[in-house]
Amino acid sequence: MTNLLDISPNMVEYIGYLGSFLTSVTFVPQVYKSWQSKSVGDLSIWMILIVVTSTIVWLVYGFSIHSGPVISANLVVLLLTLVLLYFKYSFKKP
Amino acid sequence: MTNLLDISPNMVEYIGYLGSFLTSVTFVPQVYKSWQSKSVGDLSIWMILIVVTSTIVWLVYGFSIHSGPVISANLVVLLLTLVLLYFKYSFKKP
Repeated sequence: MTNLLDISPNMVEYIGYLGSFLTSVTFVPQVYKSWQSKSVGDLSIWMILIVVTSTIVWLVYGFSIHSGPVISANLVVLLLTLVLLYFKYSFKKP
Repeated sequence: MTNLLDISPNMVEYIGYLGSFLTSVTFVPQVYKSWQSKSVGDLSIWMILIVVTSTIVWLVYGFSIHSGPVISANLVVLLLTLVLLYFKYSFKKP
């Protein structure tokens, strides 16, 4: 594949996985904060559902273009968002 | 390019841009909420800086693999995150 920025294919993959790692890292503090506080009232259920939908759409795209970084980033974000969705229901006030 | 899910190349692009659109949409409510409340105290500066870094890394990756959806999603998220960063400083309590 031609390469606009003239970076070797291996380096492109490394850069992609770095982006994937950083994206995953940004979601971890939210899950940790929600787990610690046992409070997710400020998190919009619509936001969570849109994120779940978007990660599934990105996964189809990632598999179609054979992009490991796109697939891995969206798998992690999907997993963490499903954890938030679980919190949203299990932490519900009685 | 071969295609794991047997989706036409045009459809793959549409799916990618749908993912890109959904990702952009998820960030808009946060920017709107912060702008309305004039309050960004709960937003971690580290989180914002990691998101900025990750979008730049993804942009390099997106340009390298010629992925319009990856480029557009990360341009929008970078822009919205820079707006949050601006809020973070302009809304600072005296």
